[in-house]
Amino acid sequence: MSLPVSTLAPEAFPDIPAVAGVRFATAAAGVKYRGRDDVMLAVMEDAAVAGVFTRSATRSAPVLDCQAKLSAARGPAAFLVNSGNANAFTGKAGEGSVKALCSAVAAATSVPEGRIYTASTGVIGERLPHGKIEACLGGLSDGLSADGIEAAAEAIRTTDTFAKGAFQTIEVGGTPVTIAGIAKGSGMIAPDMATMLVYIFTDASHDGAALQDLLGTLTDGTFNAITVDSDTSTSDSLLLAATGAAGVDATGDAGFATALEGVMRDLAHQVVRDGEGATKFVEITCTEAATEADAKKAALAIANSPLVKTAIAGEDPNWGRIVMAIGKSGAAADRDALSIRFGDTLVAEEGWVAASYREEDGAAYMKQEEIQISVSLGVGTASATVWTCDLTHQYITINADYRS
Amino acid sequence: MSLPVSTLAPEAFPDIPAVAGVRFATAAAGVKYRGRDDVMLAVMEDAAVAGVFTRSATRSAPVLDCQAKLSAARGPAAFLVNSGNANAFTGKAGEGSVKALCSAVAAATSVPEGRIYTASTGVIGERLPHGKIEACLGGLSDGLSADGIEAAAEAIRTTDTFAKGAFQTIEVGGTPVTIAGIAKGSGMIAPDMATMLVYIFTDASHDGAALQDLLGTLTDGTFNAITVDSDTSTSDSLLLAATGAAGVDATGDAGFATALEGVMRDLAHQVVRDGEGATKFVEITCTEAATEADAKKAALAIANSPLVKTAIAGEDPNWGRIVMAIGKSGAAADRDALSIRFGDTLVAEEGWVAASYREEDGAAYMKQEEIQISVSLGVGTASATVWTCDLTHQYITINADYRS
Repeated sequence: MSLPVSTLAPEAFPDIPAVAGVRFATAAAGVKYRGRDDVMLAVMEDAAVAGVFTRSATRSAPVLDCQAKLSAARGPAAFLVNSGNANAFTGKAGEGSVKALCSAVAAATSVPEGRIYTASTGVIGERLPHGKIEACLGGLSDGLSADGIEAAAEAIRTTDTFAKGAFQTIEVGGTPVTIAGIAKGSGMIAPDMATMLVYIFTDASHDGAALQDLLGTLTDGTFNAITVDSDTSTSDSLLLAATGAAGVDATGDAGFATALEGVMRDLAHQVVRDGEGATKFVEITCTEAATEADAKKAALAIANSPLVKTAIAGEDPNWGRIVMAIGKSGAAADRDALSIRFGDTLVAEEGWVAASYREEDGAAYMKQEEIQISVSLGVGTASATVWTCDLTHQYITINADYRS
Repeated sequence: MSLPVSTLAPEAFPDIPAVAGVRFATAAAGVKYRGRDDVMLAVMEDAAVAGVFTRSATRSAPVLDCQAKLSAARGPAAFLVNSGNANAFTGKAGEGSVKALCSAVAAATSVPEGRIYTASTGVIGERLPHGKIEACLGGLSDGLSADGIEAAAEAIRTTDTFAKGAFQTIEVGGTPVTIAGIAKGSGMIAPDMATMLVYIFTDASHDGAALQDLLGTLTDGTFNAITVDSDTSTSDSLLLAATGAAGVDATGDAGFATALEGVMRDLAHQVVRDGEGATKFVEITCTEAATEADAKKAALAIANSPLVKTAIAGEDPNWGRIVMAIGKSGAAADRDALSIRFGDTLVAEEGWVAASYREEDGAAYMKQEEIQISVSLGVGTASATVWTCDLTHQYITINADYRS
């Protein structure tokens, strides 16, 4: 099935500068797709690597292998990713495929096996034809190039309707530093983490343990604050490599953390913008909650409610469904103290529709492509923001009428 | 919007015998609908009343009033229900409407206000035109009849495509006893459309406190084990009245509890069978879980997964999505110990597709109207069963293309 590009997509893939110390290559291994590249290899001569992974109890063989290998030590490193087959729920054979691929990458690149991180994305439960990928590794190694990041973003796509990339350039201690990343993911997206693969690279140097802490913290408000359909993948992986080739250490640098968060949020938003069947990009902010956990719980209950999502799809300012979602979320709330806004328009307060609210205003607001819903729970001072998309006929078409 | 009767509906409304001590009447108050009855009144001269209600933090005014009135004492009692308007999120005015209706029922029936339980179902956030209902109460009181239960089931419908009723007749200590109930609900929630209301009556006598305990316990495995879209209404109400007119006390009688559970499960299944857009009735059983809570958590994660529900709609035996849902549920699971069955067909075990499984068998099974999915988590001895339906284009049409 060929899907039209999401109407919420950015105009073009960004013009990402090369990140010193990282080289990419892609190839058409024919794992499942025909006529396109489906494998990407990224190699760093020397880097600190941090990672965050799905907490699914049925996580895939590559995820388990990556988690076992993560360490704070620097050294050569490589990322190998294929699309078309997730190598998930493939029993002992799946572990064998990961081992075989890591051996082959090590032989082709001289990166030690313990520093090779693989990921696979696509259908679950089918044996990965790893031999097809192994056969490409010589060519991949020979073809490594500093300029291949866009091709890498293309190669890891599955049902994504556009390739996802983002970058920021900043100065750390007067030295220019680049942070650039790519992502894939468009369905089975929910916190913990969203169903997706993300690879971020920087030429800054960074302490490995501190990099791991920073990545985990920033994930909470970015990739773990998006949801498309509340489903969580068995393969979600986020890896960050800091090569140090720029010659400056960014450990503890606030500007670096802010820029990294910006790249992560940009990629997370792009995943939502490519949500299966999405026609609206929705930001939901919950304030005045008793705790931050409550704020996120209420915001996610709204974001994941099929009735809220279908109302948004239908451009229906159905605030009653938002009241319902808050009520079921389990977050502490006071019916008579909560308020709801669509953009700047006050919709409900004091346990009822606001006196100033006119249905025409809400209906007009819902026609926008980007929707902001703000809820104040009126019981505390904590807040959280999450992002989601609407639930449309096209989501049903993609997932009911098509075997992925 | 007029919806066709669900293809999963029973052939006809059951031929429910009169329950001694209960009389019904219905009327067309014109709350919202035209040309049909939209109010039902049930009056018991003497009864013990038990109730279970939504735990939503934004529950409706009638729910709050019912909860405040519940007691173990016997006495006269009345249930008044209207469709077309939920009187939910209507601020202080909503409480005033409940008070006005209870006063009017008390005046018309001589049941004391503290024993009058109301419910409203329909659009949220709009003031209930309670005067229209008050104007009908004289006629309702005059028209009370032992045979009106089917008309009562019809009057409380909103988007339900069929009226829901169930009964069992048993003997308690040699005396015939009837248990009969009606329900409405077709999205597990939907502030505007599909709250679940259930009214059950028996002519057995029963200790009030024990009746409340029994109802709560049986609700866990019946009405709290169904899900259509994971959303929860602000108005869900379940009331049970035991009149004692049969002249026998059923307190502690095992056969009575079993029959009551049967009526409750029958009504719960009918609500799922009328799930918005449903074309499949799905039973999900989870066994060998570490705890009963884990078993229900895993079963509900499967039942609520949009990706599982759309696969079932598409008659796709996509067991990979079931693995995903188990993984995200938070229930303790062992990837290599779990197994999945479609009906009697073993699909997956030992962390992979079963050697004996043939995709054609799974595909043929999925064409059935009733689907059984069994998951063994392989880590304990607890189990749970839940029921749900598929997620179809029609659900989107009902909820996105139509403003109720």
